[in-house]
Amino acid sequence: MASYEDVMSLSVRRGFLWPAVELYGGFAGFYDYGHNGALLRRHWEDAWLEHFLGLNDNYYLIDTTTILPHAALKASGHVDHFTDLLVTCTRCGESYRADHLLEDATHEEHEGLSAEETDARIKAAGVRCPKCKGELGPSRPFNMMFPLTVGPTGKDPAFLRPETAQGAFLNFKREFEALRRRLPMGLAIVGRAYRNEISPRQGTYRMREFLQAELQIFFDPEAFADQVPYASVADTPVRLCWAAEKNEATAHELPAKDLVARGLPSWYAYHMVQVQRFYLEILHIPADRFRFAELDEKERAFYNKVHFDVQVRQDSLGGFKEVGGVHYRTDHDLTGHEAGSREKQSVTVGTKKVAPHVLELSFGVDRNVWALLATGFTPGERATLRLPPRLSPVGVAVFPLVNKDGLPERAESLYALLRRRFTTFYDDAGSIGKRYARMDEIGTAFCVTVDHDTLEGRGVTLRDRDSQKQVRVAEADLPSRLERLLAGDAAFGDLA
Amino acid sequence: MASYEDVMSLSVRRGFLWPAVELYGGFAGFYDYGHNGALLRRHWEDAWLEHFLGLNDNYYLIDTTTILPHAALKASGHVDHFTDLLVTCTRCGESYRADHLLEDATHEEHEGLSAEETDARIKAAGVRCPKCKGELGPSRPFNMMFPLTVGPTGKDPAFLRPETAQGAFLNFKREFEALRRRLPMGLAIVGRAYRNEISPRQGTYRMREFLQAELQIFFDPEAFADQVPYASVADTPVRLCWAAEKNEATAHELPAKDLVARGLPSWYAYHMVQVQRFYLEILHIPADRFRFAELDEKERAFYNKVHFDVQVRQDSLGGFKEVGGVHYRTDHDLTGHEAGSREKQSVTVGTKKVAPHVLELSFGVDRNVWALLATGFTPGERATLRLPPRLSPVGVAVFPLVNKDGLPERAESLYALLRRRFTTFYDDAGSIGKRYARMDEIGTAFCVTVDHDTLEGRGVTLRDRDSQKQVRVAEADLPSRLERLLAGDAAFGDLA
Repeated sequence: MASYEDVMSLSVRRGFLWPAVELYGGFAGFYDYGHNGALLRRHWEDAWLEHFLGLNDNYYLIDTTTILPHAALKASGHVDHFTDLLVTCTRCGESYRADHLLEDATHEEHEGLSAEETDARIKAAGVRCPKCKGELGPSRPFNMMFPLTVGPTGKDPAFLRPETAQGAFLNFKREFEALRRRLPMGLAIVGRAYRNEISPRQGTYRMREFLQAELQIFFDPEAFADQVPYASVADTPVRLCWAAEKNEATAHELPAKDLVARGLPSWYAYHMVQVQRFYLEILHIPADRFRFAELDEKERAFYNKVHFDVQVRQDSLGGFKEVGGVHYRTDHDLTGHEAGSREKQSVTVGTKKVAPHVLELSFGVDRNVWALLATGFTPGERATLRLPPRLSPVGVAVFPLVNKDGLPERAESLYALLRRRFTTFYDDAGSIGKRYARMDEIGTAFCVTVDHDTLEGRGVTLRDRDSQKQVRVAEADLPSRLERLLAGDAAFGDLA
Repeated sequence: MASYEDVMSLSVRRGFLWPAVELYGGFAGFYDYGHNGALLRRHWEDAWLEHFLGLNDNYYLIDTTTILPHAALKASGHVDHFTDLLVTCTRCGESYRADHLLEDATHEEHEGLSAEETDARIKAAGVRCPKCKGELGPSRPFNMMFPLTVGPTGKDPAFLRPETAQGAFLNFKREFEALRRRLPMGLAIVGRAYRNEISPRQGTYRMREFLQAELQIFFDPEAFADQVPYASVADTPVRLCWAAEKNEATAHELPAKDLVARGLPSWYAYHMVQVQRFYLEILHIPADRFRFAELDEKERAFYNKVHFDVQVRQDSLGGFKEVGGVHYRTDHDLTGHEAGSREKQSVTVGTKKVAPHVLELSFGVDRNVWALLATGFTPGERATLRLPPRLSPVGVAVFPLVNKDGLPERAESLYALLRRRFTTFYDDAGSIGKRYARMDEIGTAFCVTVDHDTLEGRGVTLRDRDSQKQVRVAEADLPSRLERLLAGDAAFGDLA
């Protein structure tokens, strides 16, 4: 299993991701994606869109601005409430996030505390400045949004958006009118969000600029239960832990219907199953590394009526860590914007007037990329990154066995053919073993080698990353074979 | 040909794009993409990546932060030079971009003037405040970047990036080491850029937040000419106008070799041909609406040694308008960051030390989307959006002829099959004529109708948007036919 250093070292060495702006001494909380990371992330996005937009033919991708005016974020509550508690050292002036300081000192969680409670606990635990041991000042709320002004006068305050969700809420009415005037209606956004974190840390886990993939599902609370095919998943075991067990490395398996029996809405349980399918069947996260973790009333946002985090266990980050969430936001968002804008947000479906509720499926894309690297990578002499074939940065690599006898020309023309359909990489440098090793390390599932038998019309060898087995495939069959392998419609073992 | 109002009306009505945050009275210079616009834009991105990364197997996609620290943008020259001249009315306080005011008053271009020259021309032309007719104050430089601070202390100044290009320059050395240590090396970024425009206008033409697709090609100036297959395009006619003709609705066709004879580097001419191919063959822009427009020394950035804009003629925007550019930036960027960071930016290729030069292929994605809508849309009773099939938001629509006799069930199962491979839309609302009309208006190239003959095993009808012709296709052949049609590998006429 890969440590934090293993993941970061692979990431930097092979162009997945690295700290941004190192040329100017670094830029805490910001990461850039290199050539392999950008492809892995784009493939993740494609898979996410296909799976979640595929849940209903009334779910759509939109894209909205990353800068929002003050009025919109005032109405959403972010201007007043999107804060963390900040403490500053009275001696050296260094600032810290209060709950993180307390966590580091006491090894317990301290979420949802007031400033007074926090100060009391800091005092009780005798926490001082980790840098200079000076005394800490009183904690105060610090708004995590980045403020800026728009236009030449400097009088129009705005913020970088702290979440993509607001873009969907602001466009709900307009999309409802442009579409089929039907509920449920889903609006997905894959885009940047920004949080001025007091102490960014743990690689791509807590960043100041990050990518979110969120689907906001607007629904009629009286009708939604009858609109999702819950019965088809009622017996599916769901892996989860309850709020009280959240800090333990544990997970239960309960059929979806048991969750409903305990009070979860059936449409909520249905979407948990779909999220779990995405992680287990599409991302190939091992089941024992996946779970939902319930948040209690104190931990979850006050407007979330039901809230489970989606977690993946990663040694590199110290255990189960959040990569997404399933949030029942009720009608909080639309009523907030209705009050703020004085524009009615209810809609007429058929003859019925409905004030839609929202179910949010929210994912941190960078956290997902990290989780794929962290759970897929085995370091060592035969370093291998086990990614699902369709997510690998490179789908297929093409090699000439040796650089003579016309093999490079034959391999290059095969490469030119394959790259029209797949992300393809050509390599003729070094021994064939070294070339396989380089591809194993970046997760390339299949390598094709052109050898002397190829020139005699006896096909090429196709090598499988995980089993290291090779089979001989006729050149004419190669594109269709690769297509099925990369789509996950066939397994390598079926070819042998 | 579509007017500005035609394009905007289509965009809003059918969910391509619309002014952002209308709920709170609008947000000048910001646009949101609706469900059809988001797909059209993503398909444009896919086509762009395939074409331009396909030019060389050492060209790659990366992704970098949209916030950059002061030091990086100081070294790039943006802190000191990324300005427009601003004039403010001494009576009402309204601010204007000086060159736009002069242009509106004199109908001539006024680029590259100093503040003194601008003030003199404003005085000579008797320009006053368009709003209140008050006297205008002196013009002064206004930096178009959005400033912000990072971290809790407020002491670390940063900016939203004004162009994606800097991300490629900052990562050049690291990618060179992680890749094959070969030149040319290309780094592409598709991402947001931000400019605090004094007066945003003309729809998505001049926005404050916009999407760029840029490819920075790093090359050895002594070797590049021998590394591109220029000979294969030397006779290709290139459509262009010279700097002196830029304001006229004209274009010449000159073989690439004539451009080289006039002093353009052959690698520059080669890339002009590739850009032109993208517009004519992939985006299907009519040839008479496309041209390169040379910029003279005064108009182009001082560090650009050769600079042609890429332009598309659009009635909706008043003529030929910039949608991209081909910029020979010399070694300006890497030497700037070398001086700013004191880190050597030269590299060793084989045994030779090289200070790379940069050729930038730069595109405004929103401007391209607008150009596709503006040149493709024919308003009126048979309103039709002629998009290349692979770019259309919806690839194929599926209809039951009537909502009875088992046709809907059969159509739905066909829809379920097709949507696994194509962006597919199901519609059973209204007459079949109305359904075709709705698809024509959003550019859906192909519609499949299930009728009573389908139930008898006699296939489905496949209708072509542009010719309105229909052919009968066996259901088993449909996926492969559609695949070839949507990829542009076959024409509808070939099926009949």
